[in-house]
Amino acid sequence: MIGTSQSMRIPSRTSLAKSLIGVLSVAGWPARLFTIAGPAGSRRGALTGAPFAPITAAMEPVRVAAVGVGLWGKTLASAAAKDTGLAVVACTSRSADTRAEFARVHGCRALPSLDAVLADPEVEAVLITTPHSVHAAQVVAAASAGKHVFVDKPFALTVADARRATEACRRAGVVLAVGHQRRRQAANRALRRLLDEGALGRVAQIEGNMSGEIAFSSRLTPAAWRAAPAETPAGAMTNLGIHHVDTYQYLLGPVARVMALSRRVVLTGVEVDDATGILLEFAAGPVGYLGTSWVHASRTSYLTLHGTDAQAWSEADGARLLLARRGRTEREAVPLAAVDPVVEELAEFARCVRDGTAPEVGGEQATANVAVLEAIVESARGGRAVDVAR
Amino acid sequence: MIGTSQSMRIPSRTSLAKSLIGVLSVAGWPARLFTIAGPAGSRRGALTGAPFAPITAAMEPVRVAAVGVGLWGKTLASAAAKDTGLAVVACTSRSADTRAEFARVHGCRALPSLDAVLADPEVEAVLITTPHSVHAAQVVAAASAGKHVFVDKPFALTVADARRATEACRRAGVVLAVGHQRRRQAANRALRRLLDEGALGRVAQIEGNMSGEIAFSSRLTPAAWRAAPAETPAGAMTNLGIHHVDTYQYLLGPVARVMALSRRVVLTGVEVDDATGILLEFAAGPVGYLGTSWVHASRTSYLTLHGTDAQAWSEADGARLLLARRGRTEREAVPLAAVDPVVEELAEFARCVRDGTAPEVGGEQATANVAVLEAIVESARGGRAVDVAR
Repeated sequence: MIGTSQSMRIPSRTSLAKSLIGVLSVAGWPARLFTIAGPAGSRRGALTGAPFAPITAAMEPVRVAAVGVGLWGKTLASAAAKDTGLAVVACTSRSADTRAEFARVHGCRALPSLDAVLADPEVEAVLITTPHSVHAAQVVAAASAGKHVFVDKPFALTVADARRATEACRRAGVVLAVGHQRRRQAANRALRRLLDEGALGRVAQIEGNMSGEIAFSSRLTPAAWRAAPAETPAGAMTNLGIHHVDTYQYLLGPVARVMALSRRVVLTGVEVDDATGILLEFAAGPVGYLGTSWVHASRTSYLTLHGTDAQAWSEADGARLLLARRGRTEREAVPLAAVDPVVEELAEFARCVRDGTAPEVGGEQATANVAVLEAIVESARGGRAVDVAR
Repeated sequence: MIGTSQSMRIPSRTSLAKSLIGVLSVAGWPARLFTIAGPAGSRRGALTGAPFAPITAAMEPVRVAAVGVGLWGKTLASAAAKDTGLAVVACTSRSADTRAEFARVHGCRALPSLDAVLADPEVEAVLITTPHSVHAAQVVAAASAGKHVFVDKPFALTVADARRATEACRRAGVVLAVGHQRRRQAANRALRRLLDEGALGRVAQIEGNMSGEIAFSSRLTPAAWRAAPAETPAGAMTNLGIHHVDTYQYLLGPVARVMALSRRVVLTGVEVDDATGILLEFAAGPVGYLGTSWVHASRTSYLTLHGTDAQAWSEADGARLLLARRGRTEREAVPLAAVDPVVEELAEFARCVRDGTAPEVGGEQATANVAVLEAIVESARGGRAVDVAR
């Protein structure tokens, strides 16, 4: 919606959120655009699928610093430039050369350390894309310095760390947003709407796979932080599978219990698993499966829901959604609008900083994903079912 | 091949099997038709994908009795009539009305009991489609009476029963064939060939789901034997999932360990689970997933292989196979010949009875599937990984 509705007169997101709690249809807005992310009224700012208020000239851009300038740090900085309401004004990374190059490309200042970023009065917020294990400490440090935080998934590797980071942001009164952008894919938004409408009936099973191509796995060298077992437990879960965990819980509610099987089948020279399978028992009933791997011939991202009234297939990275209703063999394509989930999540972050509202995926939602991750890691190690921490 | 190659001069299946052990190309036969089901030379008669010798007028039809005349008993009898070399001459079931109706439709004699069938000198072989828990005892009884045995999957519910039944047939010198016909689907034969050729590279993951439509689940009443927990452990595994277990082991070799999660999500009034997820660790490396359920909106049968050089999708009950090679986004359709797996397995059974050769899925292969089933049931009950019995 960003950029396409600039000329429309739209109520502020805050007032929209208030008026939509428990109400799915608003005069002047097509009802299908709106769904609520949780039980009605349970989450502040948990609007999903609703258009954001457009960025207007009146809103001062939020000045952010990139903490971490690797592949995803660059992706976020490029997306931030697309009318999100964020302005990248600084960056930092361990390597002076790397941060200088990033600063040149993105027209910002290179700072020598996180401390320097947090001490910089121009910086209002940070975009953290550093190794997983340091996320929590960096979030706490940023919050203590009064900086708003956008941090990449996984939020943390343990529930204890995730709670500590969430609490630090709450105490400091800063916005905390976690980069689970894939729930924003058009297919996932449409799936959520279909579920809310009851179009799928009772869901018996959910299945999906989120895997990387083997060409990427050449980066998993002993020198790469991502190949360290401490950073990457349960194979590709921290990098890829965690996305589906967020989407699954977004669609079907909390996962109560998991079983996991994780091995190294193909890779050599590194300790990281490359093929991981997970079973998930949802509190609401369904039995789920999530597969993740580093070594598929090509990238894999699919998600399937098997309901009693219809089955649905999200394909092509959430750009295509097929639906087969009971008694019909053909699959119908569900019309989807084009969305850029990364641009959308960054625009939401900017808006939350300015409005003081909460993002859709904040500390609480991201901690629920970390809890599933931690249970998966424990199950894969112990070969038994593990309850997800609540 | 049956019925289409009557005019061709073809060596007997026995001589073909001998000449093909370890040899994939035979003069006059396209090499792609032939693959070996196990390590070369490891299994007697383990030819797969090879054409059967045609039924000739010289071969006397094998006179079989249907033991069990339910849905699958009827399906087998109808298929048997399609030039398989079997002649259904008798039937039996618990209900006099049901067996009389079957006898009328299929033009055979209705006999009052299994004992009567086994005492009947005209009957050379039995087609067993009775409740799972009685398969083993009936196979042993048939073997003791010198009757050849074709028995539906699951062969048995325990490895002990499966071994007992296998040994009885071996001692009696009768043919034992088990109805795992789905490995004969065109897509599975082609997948096996692609794997043998190394076209997929190293396989990291296999995923599939084999589930029934919810309309069928209306048959799962307390009065139906299939709804008894003792007959149907681990939900739809015994009815549907066991097919994929056979196909998985046919494609990737033995499963070493499983984890399973099985629940009742939708059904009420019966004790049977309706949603089951299973993780499988293959001895050769890959991590597998199998989902099975009674309550999907429509029937589900898919199977996906994720290899390092290519990924493959078997769809439409094995009638469509798509392949995506590394570095290419489009999926190519693999050309498949039309096959009728049930007709083919029955024709093979007739040929084995007359030739004294072993069928592709005999007691040993079927016992390996029962071993996986038994481990799945134990894992679902205990919530932990279970090694598959060898």
